[in-house]
Amino acid sequence: MTQSFYPPQRTLMGPGPSDVHPRVLAAMARPTIGHLDPEFIRMMDEVKALLQYAFQTTNPVTFAVSAPGSAGMECCFVNLVQPGEEVIVCQNGVFGGRMKENVERCGGFPVMVQDDWGKPIDLNKVEDALKANPEAELLAFVHAETSTGVQSDAKALCALAQQYGCLTIVDTVTSLGGISVCVDEWDADAVYSGSQKCLSAPPGISPVTFGERAVEVVKARTTKVQSWFLDLQLMLSYWAGEGKRAYHHTAPINLLYALHEALVILQEEGLENAWARHALHHQALRAGCEAMGLHFVVEEAYRLPELNAVSVPDGVDEAKVRARLLQDYSLEVGAGLGAMAGKIWRVGLMGHAANKKNVLLFLSAMDAVLGQMDAPIVRDVAVDAALGVYAEG
Amino acid sequence: MTQSFYPPQRTLMGPGPSDVHPRVLAAMARPTIGHLDPEFIRMMDEVKALLQYAFQTTNPVTFAVSAPGSAGMECCFVNLVQPGEEVIVCQNGVFGGRMKENVERCGGFPVMVQDDWGKPIDLNKVEDALKANPEAELLAFVHAETSTGVQSDAKALCALAQQYGCLTIVDTVTSLGGISVCVDEWDADAVYSGSQKCLSAPPGISPVTFGERAVEVVKARTTKVQSWFLDLQLMLSYWAGEGKRAYHHTAPINLLYALHEALVILQEEGLENAWARHALHHQALRAGCEAMGLHFVVEEAYRLPELNAVSVPDGVDEAKVRARLLQDYSLEVGAGLGAMAGKIWRVGLMGHAANKKNVLLFLSAMDAVLGQMDAPIVRDVAVDAALGVYAEG
Repeated sequence: MTQSFYPPQRTLMGPGPSDVHPRVLAAMARPTIGHLDPEFIRMMDEVKALLQYAFQTTNPVTFAVSAPGSAGMECCFVNLVQPGEEVIVCQNGVFGGRMKENVERCGGFPVMVQDDWGKPIDLNKVEDALKANPEAELLAFVHAETSTGVQSDAKALCALAQQYGCLTIVDTVTSLGGISVCVDEWDADAVYSGSQKCLSAPPGISPVTFGERAVEVVKARTTKVQSWFLDLQLMLSYWAGEGKRAYHHTAPINLLYALHEALVILQEEGLENAWARHALHHQALRAGCEAMGLHFVVEEAYRLPELNAVSVPDGVDEAKVRARLLQDYSLEVGAGLGAMAGKIWRVGLMGHAANKKNVLLFLSAMDAVLGQMDAPIVRDVAVDAALGVYAEG
Repeated sequence: MTQSFYPPQRTLMGPGPSDVHPRVLAAMARPTIGHLDPEFIRMMDEVKALLQYAFQTTNPVTFAVSAPGSAGMECCFVNLVQPGEEVIVCQNGVFGGRMKENVERCGGFPVMVQDDWGKPIDLNKVEDALKANPEAELLAFVHAETSTGVQSDAKALCALAQQYGCLTIVDTVTSLGGISVCVDEWDADAVYSGSQKCLSAPPGISPVTFGERAVEVVKARTTKVQSWFLDLQLMLSYWAGEGKRAYHHTAPINLLYALHEALVILQEEGLENAWARHALHHQALRAGCEAMGLHFVVEEAYRLPELNAVSVPDGVDEAKVRARLLQDYSLEVGAGLGAMAGKIWRVGLMGHAANKKNVLLFLSAMDAVLGQMDAPIVRDVAVDAALGVYAEG
């Protein structure tokens, strides 16, 4: 007989999921009700308003796709890309590559703008691509690359796209709630995110928002959206129906309770306060890492406070370090992906996990583990360096 | 400021979601851990084994799609249907129509076999279609139509398909855990289900199983699967990786805790006992309804015990009845869909909700509400009729 599963209590400082707030876990365990229950529909309206706040938008088409962030991404592409269309895709990490896959699978033609992993998207290269491809309908880019911890200038990229008559698809999976995401100020057209990063809800649901121009493009399509599950017009009959909501698919009720509670907590704290909190704990983590002799991969101006890509010191087996952190400290940090595999750790300070306790735990545990492995670091200085940052406030 | 959401405590006797077992709600609220955590991967292996038990299969490719049943359906179609292929689709309710949409959106050509809503799929018509369309690669059908409460003969349909060289896609969303689903005995090729029906987990995750022939077809594809999120080969690198699991997307951790617990409960009860329990409570519900003068839509031999389609008596506004049941008894029953809208109620006895307490609540509440509305029913006899069935055992 298989027994019930009791997970260990981890501290989640990887690239997501992040530690979930106890209030969010409690919300998720409330009794399931029907997906057409008037009380549930009232809650969905609140989720929409809370997401509008988180995305800083008044877009009426703002809701949560009933699947993880990857499906949120796919939702944007399948609705906006028609067969034969050109899409300019910026790639400076794993997720730009996934965007390329999406364009191809929609029958579109990706025009790739490549930047080195760990560097932000180069605006000049993007402008060159826009000039060279006047037929392009869309520009797609990742605001905050989870694979490297770099942020790009979303506002400037959206402005460039507009100048050349392109709509934008923007990945804010790792930025929403952690750094400034201002959809209306950017004038972005289709934006998706995830629940399990800086919103600190469990994974499995994906906030999205579509601006008016994007909705017009979807309505004007001459071909059916290739995904029934992710067809925006069908989903809206459920999420945005006035009065009567038409059944499309069964919403993940309890995950929506969780997202609702996570967004209520964000609203209580205030977006700007949440951004400032992420910045503060990043500075403390950074001071500790640098005192220890660990280097950041990303240039200072482009670092994401919520995802810290730290170089593995010479001669150190990064997987062994992660295994020991997990085993001895129940602390999860992330490995590098793709080109960064084996070379970096990804240390998350996302949402509820961006706090002093986690920063100090990480620095002490890393200090001890690297010390045991005779890594070339400076011992016993990291925690004090971080405390210095906190003392300054 | 938006407040935390506290859902009302309902009794869920609609077409799903069904009442979730308190153990399952508690499991879902356990701390989130990483989707690559060794403990999580161990739990995924258990989920796979438990799903093999529920599906009665030894298929190694058995797992949970990270999205609701509609995405489980789409997963089967996008992987198995290539552009230009013919697919025979049986339709005797809403979900056969959704299958048609899926085939078309994959670039395939659906050949429809239509039966009246509320009737099972006619084997003769299917055989005629198989004969008339020798190019067809697939036969797709719904085992248990959630829109009407009718079951079709899955074993015979799979045998017919094989005789004519077709693979099968079988919808068991409403049957899994409620009536016999024996994937290996049927020799079905691709089967999907939902979490929120007779498994009584929250919605948002979709069990699927693929047999060897189906996996071969997917591996032999000459075109890429149009969905990146639902690409079987990519998903398997995470779910079925030997030793090392490659990151594909972030699994919905806490929903998997819930599914795991729901399957542990099913294993503790035993599949056959669960089927017998659904049958018993259906008989009690039926005795009560018939004593009251309410009629079943589906002929006895094809009725699903877990989904009872009951005719609305003449002159009764069915929506008012549902509203009053919800308001005065916090009891949810379902409306008719499509051709059945306004004509039937759908009364679910699914999973944890298939119990004596719910049957008696439904009968007493319906008796009272219909009585208040002067509906043409026999009053005050339903509960005794149901108790008679329970007395017989």
